[in-house]
Amino acid sequence: MLPEGLLEKLIIKNDTKIVYLILDGVGGLSLEGKEGTELQVAHKPNMDKLAEKSICGLLDPIDPGITPGSGPSHFSLFGYDPLGSNIGRGILEASGIDFPLTSKDVVARINFATIDREGRIIDRRAGRITTSDNERICAKLRDNIKLKPNIEFFVEPVKEHRAVLAFRGEGLEGDIEDTDPQKVGLFPLKPKAINHESETTAKLVSDFLSQARSILADEKKANMILLRGFAKHRVYPSMEKRFGLKSLAIATYPMYKGIARLLGMAVIPSLITIEDEFKALKEQYNNYDFFYLHIKQTDSRGEDGDFDAKVKVIEEVDEFLPRITELNPDVLVVTGDHSTPARLAGHSWHPLPVILNSKFCRVDQVTRFDEISCIQGGLGRQPSYNLMTIALANAGRLSKFGA
Amino acid sequence: MLPEGLLEKLIIKNDTKIVYLILDGVGGLSLEGKEGTELQVAHKPNMDKLAEKSICGLLDPIDPGITPGSGPSHFSLFGYDPLGSNIGRGILEASGIDFPLTSKDVVARINFATIDREGRIIDRRAGRITTSDNERICAKLRDNIKLKPNIEFFVEPVKEHRAVLAFRGEGLEGDIEDTDPQKVGLFPLKPKAINHESETTAKLVSDFLSQARSILADEKKANMILLRGFAKHRVYPSMEKRFGLKSLAIATYPMYKGIARLLGMAVIPSLITIEDEFKALKEQYNNYDFFYLHIKQTDSRGEDGDFDAKVKVIEEVDEFLPRITELNPDVLVVTGDHSTPARLAGHSWHPLPVILNSKFCRVDQVTRFDEISCIQGGLGRQPSYNLMTIALANAGRLSKFGA
Repeated sequence: MLPEGLLEKLIIKNDTKIVYLILDGVGGLSLEGKEGTELQVAHKPNMDKLAEKSICGLLDPIDPGITPGSGPSHFSLFGYDPLGSNIGRGILEASGIDFPLTSKDVVARINFATIDREGRIIDRRAGRITTSDNERICAKLRDNIKLKPNIEFFVEPVKEHRAVLAFRGEGLEGDIEDTDPQKVGLFPLKPKAINHESETTAKLVSDFLSQARSILADEKKANMILLRGFAKHRVYPSMEKRFGLKSLAIATYPMYKGIARLLGMAVIPSLITIEDEFKALKEQYNNYDFFYLHIKQTDSRGEDGDFDAKVKVIEEVDEFLPRITELNPDVLVVTGDHSTPARLAGHSWHPLPVILNSKFCRVDQVTRFDEISCIQGGLGRQPSYNLMTIALANAGRLSKFGA
Repeated sequence: MLPEGLLEKLIIKNDTKIVYLILDGVGGLSLEGKEGTELQVAHKPNMDKLAEKSICGLLDPIDPGITPGSGPSHFSLFGYDPLGSNIGRGILEASGIDFPLTSKDVVARINFATIDREGRIIDRRAGRITTSDNERICAKLRDNIKLKPNIEFFVEPVKEHRAVLAFRGEGLEGDIEDTDPQKVGLFPLKPKAINHESETTAKLVSDFLSQARSILADEKKANMILLRGFAKHRVYPSMEKRFGLKSLAIATYPMYKGIARLLGMAVIPSLITIEDEFKALKEQYNNYDFFYLHIKQTDSRGEDGDFDAKVKVIEEVDEFLPRITELNPDVLVVTGDHSTPARLAGHSWHPLPVILNSKFCRVDQVTRFDEISCIQGGLGRQPSYNLMTIALANAGRLSKFGA
């Protein structure tokens, strides 16, 4: 990894375009009865054609063997240290709903839950209450909870049983354990400070929770809240500041928009289908330097354990690929953020195949975009973290290092 | 990268010989109308035969995507941290003319230039004055400039319009911006300190420059000097000290001799042709452990953007290769310091193919020495920095680490 700040010193601005097509969780595993991984089985002539005239390889999101969450795996793709910048789930959720985070905020994700009379959890998602119930309950908490002066708090609905809790004040710290025990039949845990600096904040959370429990006592379903992913917000230098890239995120899911916002990317608010995303790319193509086009469905079908459905998503995206290539970007990257093999029905540690196409890439002998073919690629096997440097180089956006 | 000092602890001395044949800028790119890169097009049966019975791979001089200057890319090949040892152009030039650098020296490269009456630069190279004019003007500056006591200064001619300026004294620092604006029609820049520690030195440079301008006012062509690549000299531990290698540099260009001298290599003073260099290797073969044979012309023809001429240089070097193999060195490395594709007419970020031959290398399936074939090599893709460790191992010069 380059020393901090070195890349920034080499940046040149020009009018080249870089497009990242990120198929979330695209990396897979072969499955009995299938002829290979999801990518190997998918009929994807456009991706294969692109691989043939590009340089390919394998990316490790964090480090070989490490299974990443979406936050660090995306940070790595964008050239941000995935270990130095491990961000809380609360921060991702908050940024996803465009909550205006400040450096004085400690944030956690809320799950509304149902507890029995003794206080034991009987439903960790409060029967997936409706979003309008969620909004009503958030307002109820906002109106009735009183904390000590100089501390502001925010309770912001996300969707169904999910919300965001933020405390804002001087000297707050976010190293606090989850209160969600992750199992029904157990009591919610106490908000325990992991270090001395976070003890004041943990007390504040404790106060908040006991008030919330009283206030929600009359609710049928959402009569308790569970908190996880506490973190203090840290302001990251933007992609524009670091790399001179005016950047746009094209994503349908809040969390990925949130990650993009944390790095200063512009975000298109209301896209729904994959086709919407490709249309947005074309419409916005003249307005930005860097485009992050995120496909969620590969990951979702992987998480479902549905091999065939994941194959279908890959095939659908493949049909849209010419909509990018006809724009003729200076650098086009096709890869994922991490693997989500249907066989494992969850994120995994396996590296990702990657295609990098540019006028200046050294075309290798790989002719197919999949986990096995790309082993032979000219990029070799590298941390995802290197990808941004290589993309910037291929876009003519880096000057020489040293005399 | 190994922790500093670890490799040195493992060193064993023996009488093996290691030869590095470094074709400067050898890495290339395919070009329209050509069947591949410069190395792929070149007819080089000896290199290909060597690749066939060796282990091959790809080297990244600094980090994937980073285009290196000659200084850091060579340091990396010799097992020195290319980032920790970023050396100024002035230091390289000074070392190239065998100027006896000390740890009290701040050095910059001089370009003699022509300015008009208002002081605007009209020729950044002073019409490429002759070397004897250069020598005369350097003497004139030496004889007439008076700086404050305790500060020595040196003005040393290099060639044509190029010279070296060194200040020697306690407490001098070298973080000073170039005064060369890199364009005609502009005024020379002021020598600006980049940090507080360098402010005293920047004032000294300022004083030097205003005296120089008066003294040179009567010169027709070289009536001003432009300074760039300021740096304080840092004394590097020699290859002999670090690795126990008595080392010889065989190079024709001053800068590469300079780099070698910085690492304590002996240097043969006056070689001109490629054949001279191979002859020198044979003559000196019994006197050293490590040989750095540098071929400049591959880089020069790459910088010229002349694909065919670069191919010819590779073919010429290939004809000389048996003069090395017949010496039967224990380890023979053939690679470059960085890529200089004719298509880009400049240094680039692309990795370098490498051959490493020794009795103990694990021969892979690569049968040709080029950027695409070597992807499949047993060395994989690695930082150039690792090469010295691998060479030392193959020469039996490293003991076991740990019990």
